[in-house]
Amino acid sequence: MNASKPHLVVIGVGLIGGSVARALRASGFVSRVTGVGRNVKNLQRAEELNVVDHWTTDAAAAVSDADIVLLATPVGSYDAIFAEIAGHLPESAVVTDAGSTKQCVLEAAGKHFKSLARFVPAHPIAGTEKSGVEASFAELFKDRLCVLTPLPETDEDALQLVQQMWKATGSRLCEMPANEHDDFLAAVSHLPHLLAYGLVNTVRKVGTGKHDPFRFAAGGFRDFSRIASSSPEMWRDIVMTNRQAVLEKLGLLQSELDAMRTMLQDSDAEALLNEFKSAKQARDEWLKTHGGSL
Amino acid sequence: MNASKPHLVVIGVGLIGGSVARALRASGFVSRVTGVGRNVKNLQRAEELNVVDHWTTDAAAAVSDADIVLLATPVGSYDAIFAEIAGHLPESAVVTDAGSTKQCVLEAAGKHFKSLARFVPAHPIAGTEKSGVEASFAELFKDRLCVLTPLPETDEDALQLVQQMWKATGSRLCEMPANEHDDFLAAVSHLPHLLAYGLVNTVRKVGTGKHDPFRFAAGGFRDFSRIASSSPEMWRDIVMTNRQAVLEKLGLLQSELDAMRTMLQDSDAEALLNEFKSAKQARDEWLKTHGGSL
Repeated sequence: MNASKPHLVVIGVGLIGGSVARALRASGFVSRVTGVGRNVKNLQRAEELNVVDHWTTDAAAAVSDADIVLLATPVGSYDAIFAEIAGHLPESAVVTDAGSTKQCVLEAAGKHFKSLARFVPAHPIAGTEKSGVEASFAELFKDRLCVLTPLPETDEDALQLVQQMWKATGSRLCEMPANEHDDFLAAVSHLPHLLAYGLVNTVRKVGTGKHDPFRFAAGGFRDFSRIASSSPEMWRDIVMTNRQAVLEKLGLLQSELDAMRTMLQDSDAEALLNEFKSAKQARDEWLKTHGGSL
Repeated sequence: MNASKPHLVVIGVGLIGGSVARALRASGFVSRVTGVGRNVKNLQRAEELNVVDHWTTDAAAAVSDADIVLLATPVGSYDAIFAEIAGHLPESAVVTDAGSTKQCVLEAAGKHFKSLARFVPAHPIAGTEKSGVEASFAELFKDRLCVLTPLPETDEDALQLVQQMWKATGSRLCEMPANEHDDFLAAVSHLPHLLAYGLVNTVRKVGTGKHDPFRFAAGGFRDFSRIASSSPEMWRDIVMTNRQAVLEKLGLLQSELDAMRTMLQDSDAEALLNEFKSAKQARDEWLKTHGGSL
């Protein structure tokens, strides 16, 4: 590190990148923040809002004196960004990211970096439906889980710096292999998005012309389908980059639905009740244990 | 009607029955309200809270001088209640209800009433996760849709009185055949509940022992699964009494999921994007048109 406090380069100054920058400036963790992106207006706005000290559209130049580089762009863009910065990173720099899937990110980095020893992938499990630097705020990560997926070859000092950085955003940290992360997230996040999109499309096809089925939807439908209002492009990228795990969890859910179909066909009210009770119990326990901070 | 304002008998003084009673007292629509139920403590509490004027556990006696009888108990109990009150209703009395499914309710009434001319089924699409008279409030139905499913043989004056009653709760009214109601509600309400229960059970089975998958769940999961915290008994009754329509909609959803599975298997990112976009568009339009009052 050049100074006692690191120079942070944030590639992608949107909701996530902007919020990390704000949190790390507020906590005094960084000496300065350079924003990188393609949208000049957004970068200018980030400077006006005091989210970054400087900005540039030239990622290679920006990282050349970085201590920490944070990728906070859609995971679909990583390949091109890694290609652009790989030859320009100082040896001492560490790279982390905020992508929702982790195996594909390691794969993309492996194509361009000679070693993965100083790349520590991260997934801060936080967000809102909004996007852009205007929506960013320093408290976004407060008490939220951030999963790090280091490799056996990860440098100890690189891991420590990335841990310190995410802790300084207010995150609670957790470490696991990338494949485990992708597996869990497929179940609790990617599959629900797929389902919400699928449910809304089902309702859409039920219309009779005379009556709009959506007219009869109430609060339960609103909450259930909220995530179907998320960015289609972002979620296409996420499910595509975690295809195998999503397919596997979708298969598990399809088996559940097949089982409930059989119970309904057999008028097996007792079996349905047991299904519903198990789910309610698990959900109520989750809410008690983990839901309080949401 | 005995007086200028009707005597309302509410069978089942819980969230829904209590809220109807409160709303009709507040609007001055009723002369008095009699509460009927099996839980004496709940009925005493309803009187203390001024939700009812009197209460009794004897449904047959209570309805003998009723102008309007409202059933606000789980639909699974209707058969027994209709059997109990059928021989005791004054000829002039009208009966309505607040059940979530309507064909089964007409079927149950047909078994016990000589004629269905003075039974006007209703479904106020409103509710909260709470239950019991303590949770009731006069504004529950304000600007919410209430679907009436009269029959061709329904008496005009009975229909008018039931319309006036539900309007006096603040509901917006809508009329359609019972089978259409059941069809729409299967899509926008019953199927989402089935799915939410199924999703939580899927996540439950993903646990590895080392990590609890629920730990990685965030706001999207919380909202999506909220309805999985609903009463298992109530939802067993609802899906069982609307079995055919729920099975049909479940089939439609399963086809959607099969189609998305194929897109994922084929890495057809373009097709997935189109699915997601259609859903987002439909959901955003629904929110703009109908979601404001929720």
